Amino acid sequence: MNVFIAGIDGYLGWSLANYLVSRGHRIGGADKFLRRAWVAEVGGDSVTPIRSMADRRAAFREVHGQDVEFLEGDLCDYAFVERVLREFAPDAIVHLGEVPSAPYSMIDVDHAVFTQTNNVVSTLNLLFAIRAVCPDAHLVKLGTMGEYGTPNIPIPEGFFEIEYRGRRDTLPFPRQAGSWYHWSKVHDSSNVMFACRLWGLRATDIMQGVVFGTRFDDRQTDERLVTRFDVDQCFGTVINRFCAQAVVGHPLTPFGTGGQQRGFLPLQDSMACLTLVLGAPPERGEYRVFNQFAEVYSVADLALRVQRVAASIQLDVEVRPVANPRAEREQHYYRPDHQHLFDLGYRPTADLDHTLRVMLQDLQRLRPRLEPLRHAFMPDIRWDGTRRRSAFLAEPTPASNA
Amino acid sequence: MNVFIAGIDGYLGWSLANYLVSRGHRIGGADKFLRRAWVAEVGGDSVTPIRSMADRRAAFREVHGQDVEFLEGDLCDYAFVERVLREFAPDAIVHLGEVPSAPYSMIDVDHAVFTQTNNVVSTLNLLFAIRAVCPDAHLVKLGTMGEYGTPNIPIPEGFFEIEYRGRRDTLPFPRQAGSWYHWSKVHDSSNVMFACRLWGLRATDIMQGVVFGTRFDDRQTDERLVTRFDVDQCFGTVINRFCAQAVVGHPLTPFGTGGQQRGFLPLQDSMACLTLVLGAPPERGEYRVFNQFAEVYSVADLALRVQRVAASIQLDVEVRPVANPRAEREQHYYRPDHQHLFDLGYRPTADLDHTLRVMLQDLQRLRPRLEPLRHAFMPDIRWDGTRRRSAFLAEPTPASNA
Repeated sequence: MNVFIAGIDGYLGWSLANYLVSRGHRIGGADKFLRRAWVAEVGGDSVTPIRSMADRRAAFREVHGQDVEFLEGDLCDYAFVERVLREFAPDAIVHLGEVPSAPYSMIDVDHAVFTQTNNVVSTLNLLFAIRAVCPDAHLVKLGTMGEYGTPNIPIPEGFFEIEYRGRRDTLPFPRQAGSWYHWSKVHDSSNVMFACRLWGLRATDIMQGVVFGTRFDDRQTDERLVTRFDVDQCFGTVINRFCAQAVVGHPLTPFGTGGQQRGFLPLQDSMACLTLVLGAPPERGEYRVFNQFAEVYSVADLALRVQRVAASIQLDVEVRPVANPRAEREQHYYRPDHQHLFDLGYRPTADLDHTLRVMLQDLQRLRPRLEPLRHAFMPDIRWDGTRRRSAFLAEPTPASNA
Repeated sequence: MNVFIAGIDGYLGWSLANYLVSRGHRIGGADKFLRRAWVAEVGGDSVTPIRSMADRRAAFREVHGQDVEFLEGDLCDYAFVERVLREFAPDAIVHLGEVPSAPYSMIDVDHAVFTQTNNVVSTLNLLFAIRAVCPDAHLVKLGTMGEYGTPNIPIPEGFFEIEYRGRRDTLPFPRQAGSWYHWSKVHDSSNVMFACRLWGLRATDIMQGVVFGTRFDDRQTDERLVTRFDVDQCFGTVINRFCAQAVVGHPLTPFGTGGQQRGFLPLQDSMACLTLVLGAPPERGEYRVFNQFAEVYSVADLALRVQRVAASIQLDVEVRPVANPRAEREQHYYRPDHQHLFDLGYRPTADLDHTLRVMLQDLQRLRPRLEPLRHAFMPDIRWDGTRRRSAFLAEPTPASNA
């Protein structure tokens, strides 16, 4: 299958290119290297020493015996998007070319506007270009479980049938996102749904949980093909940051009580799920939504879990909650479905402890690169619009939660 | 009250400025005159001979004995938005500064992207500027009943309490918009809702029906203060277009079967409703949604109604349905609530026939300006992305529907 990856230089994008090529697909992609720039802007850097795209492509060819076709350019430039799709002739397009950070979008008006316009315009351009060039292609668009927020009812996969005042209908499940970024993904989901109805495109919208991990594949061996790994407050997601903190002896820092529940999945599971999705495209005109995560955890539980696994390899680290910079419920009901991917054959990586141990060991080897990023662990981008470093909270997390 | 009108040069904006000033409010506004440019772009023109902003302001001062404070500029420029709010110090901001046309947004990728970015960015800028400058001010943001689409259940006002799998919650009512424009308004509604929750802003989101009419006020007399009146396929809404067609003897052109039901309200009622809304602001942090329309009609019934009223003043005109250029249900359930404005005291203009007669007579006086706009009546912007003039359908609308 010809798979085009928009945002191929990113954490998921580069992983997916490698994962899919070793499963027999032809890979092409585009990127403008904005992720590298954003991470640098907020004072971070990839802990893994990622190579330039030229070096990545050379290693890719050497290892996989196949080129990754690549064009540098902006997905917000429609002419570019139409050209790359025309040249590559994809059977499927995986859209990973968006700003993926809630805190980044909350910095100020410029970052909010940039996040929403970049994400909305790149997605609109892809939709119009698919219609013009390859209307039969399958669009796999990455959304986020964060689109749903934390309603007091179970979360279905995209749609639900309800009765209201004695009548029934199947409707899009209401979204209650918690950042300008998360709302940008809601806007995108709406636009993709509309394009499928309007033009008969086919799309799978992935409401993905929080991804963690250093490895996209057990077989991953060549260091030149490693994907990026961020630990800063904007682009470092929670488990990745906890593991990095553990390795340098920085306290693990859940926000507030840590009672926030989210769906999580290892990077490798994300790759496995996307591969399953690509292998079972929807019908023309079908817009389907998959909730993509392995399991729901609370942030506090994850901190204790990382703490315990770290201790098992002689890394002793405290859990010290910090003042929550976000506006979010810290205690809430949370029961999202994730049946669609199971129906396609997805089986979650059973052993979270093993995955965490591999991450910690990978990061231990990278400790010299990790030490200078310590300063980027503690959040100062606040949802109230101010910029103030979160303090440690007085109360330690009780060990009984473990 | 200091009322700032974003988009003060438009159909509703200029009407509202005049309506409110004669009710004792201080009026300021901004505009970039884009509506004038868009209408010209699609081959239309205001049937009413609207004046330049300089002449409008001079007449406004003369008639109302008060200035309208005005700054020309782009709401997508944050610095401009913050500056105008700082200078004017509003108690309320009415956001009418958006692209208001579904067909315009459906022309091509450029128009889709422009509509969504213009509307989303202007609203984000207003939200951030209100937070920075006047966080206590009341934002009245114009949405559209079209955000809801045509679900098979009653449409509440923004939110509904539902039971799902044995649990209850009150959630935003799902939106199912039918054009890139309508989705841009959904995106805006989401962003405004989030800002209220996040920063404690106060906002009323008006899901407005289709507005029609030549007059914003019974007292309206000075011709220099007239508001614009469009009849082209993009900016001329359905009743306005029917009346214009009747005056020049062009068949009235419902789309398809004309079974589409929508909420409608006269321009004067829109002004009365917005005035009621401004007089009863929500609490800090409250985001409320009002469905704003007088009555639901089917498009076919409206065509026959206009035909009948026209005949009563010796304008004989056919009703000739045309092929529907849109992708929309032509027969559907439609039961939207509109109680909130009634609770505030809104009483719809009772006599639709009278309003239609006034419109027809106003347009008869403008017939020389109307004749050259005939070519703009028939739609050629199609929802399937092609550009092809709609043909008349063979079947006449049966008179028994009247």
